[in-house]
Amino acid sequence: MIFQKEITLKARQRGFHIITDEIERAIPELSKISKGIAHVFIQHTSASLSINENADPTVRSDMEKYFNTVVPESATYFRHTYEGTDDMTSHIKSSLLGNSVSVPITNGELNLGTWQGIYLCEHRNRGGARRLVITLIGE
Amino acid sequence: MIFQKEITLKARQRGFHIITDEIERAIPELSKISKGIAHVFIQHTSASLSINENADPTVRSDMEKYFNTVVPESATYFRHTYEGTDDMTSHIKSSLLGNSVSVPITNGELNLGTWQGIYLCEHRNRGGARRLVITLIGE
Amino acid sequence: MIFQKEITLKARQRGFHIITDEIERAIPELSKISKGIAHVFIQHTSASLSINENADPTVRSDMEKYFNTVVPESATYFRHTYEGTDDMTSHIKSSLLGNSVSVPITNGELNLGTWQGIYLCEHRNRGGARRLVITLIGE
Repeated sequence: MIFQKEITLKARQRGFHIITDEIERAIPELSKISKGIAHVFIQHTSASLSINENADPTVRSDMEKYFNTVVPESATYFRHTYEGTDDMTSHIKSSLLGNSVSVPITNGELNLGTWQGIYLCEHRNRGGARRLVITLIGE
Repeated sequence: MIFQKEITLKARQRGFHIITDEIERAIPELSKISKGIAHVFIQHTSASLSINENADPTVRSDMEKYFNTVVPESATYFRHTYEGTDDMTSHIKSSLLGNSVSVPITNGELNLGTWQGIYLCEHRNRGGARRLVITLIGE
Repeated sequence: MIFQKEITLKARQRGFHIITDEIERAIPELSKISKGIAHVFIQHTSASLSINENADPTVRSDMEKYFNTVVPESATYFRHTYEGTDDMTSHIKSSLLGNSVSVPITNGELNLGTWQGIYLCEHRNRGGARRLVITLIGE
């Protein structure tokens, strides 16, 4: 069984956001799969997807601070800054964090660990709406 | 054909560890698949999975040194440090390295390159046992 | 339906290179799949795969500059430098960027965003030819 759905996430402010619920709501077909894999793909190069702690908001704000530190907008050697200082840095963060996550499906549910949630990582100051392609493969 | 299995890895010390053999032993069903994909997922946010060099232990110790340098526990801006200086840094390393790997299956075996092995990357000082979900999809 | 193919990419100079066309040409079976996933895996530990901006070459040159900065060959603590200063740094870049990408397949095509391309990230000064294993799972 293969299901596929494209969804659009509303524009969010720059930073790290939990989107597990939105993904689960978009794919009710999940309940028909006893075992398989859910693949979530973001069709952009200046935002990314990751899996991390789903409870304490300081994890998300510390993430934002860290990635701004390790990919500094103050770097003077970037040439691809046509759209601002958050242009090239967003492309780099996107490759560091990755543009897809895949999660096992078990007994009709995403088999995440207790503390895991799916993050949308918005790297642009004004990223706008973001498109995801969700693919479920299972039986 | 889809197989799925959850396994628990024994507690390991902080650092990078090769676990290819443990994974292969856990999934004898691999031998029945002529082509497909093996997906290995870690259900934690302070340890990660990666694929890297399987021979020289200095790769793993240099990895540990590098990630401690690029994600420094001495950073004073982290707020999520309730469980110690290795708390937030472990979450960051987990997103940098990733919480799953997928490997092609060919003729009943993981089709890794000659020098590739699967790493458990333990970022906590006392991470404890770690749970993996392994999913094989193939024919 | 599962298709699998191994291909060899010609040697490229150190840096970031778009290989989307080469991958698509290698898998004409893509046109038979209405929905599914394409998994591309590199069998090496000193080169990697990523997805990023497919238009402006300055993105790729800025990527190369950035990764040379955040994984500096001048670091004196690396022990795994038997093959040169680009030895251990290439292993680290490989784990930071990742050794596989997976892309949704929709209506017989890779369902990439408008600005997305698949990158071969060559981290060695003389990496030589690189082997990929491409696996398509779909219906």
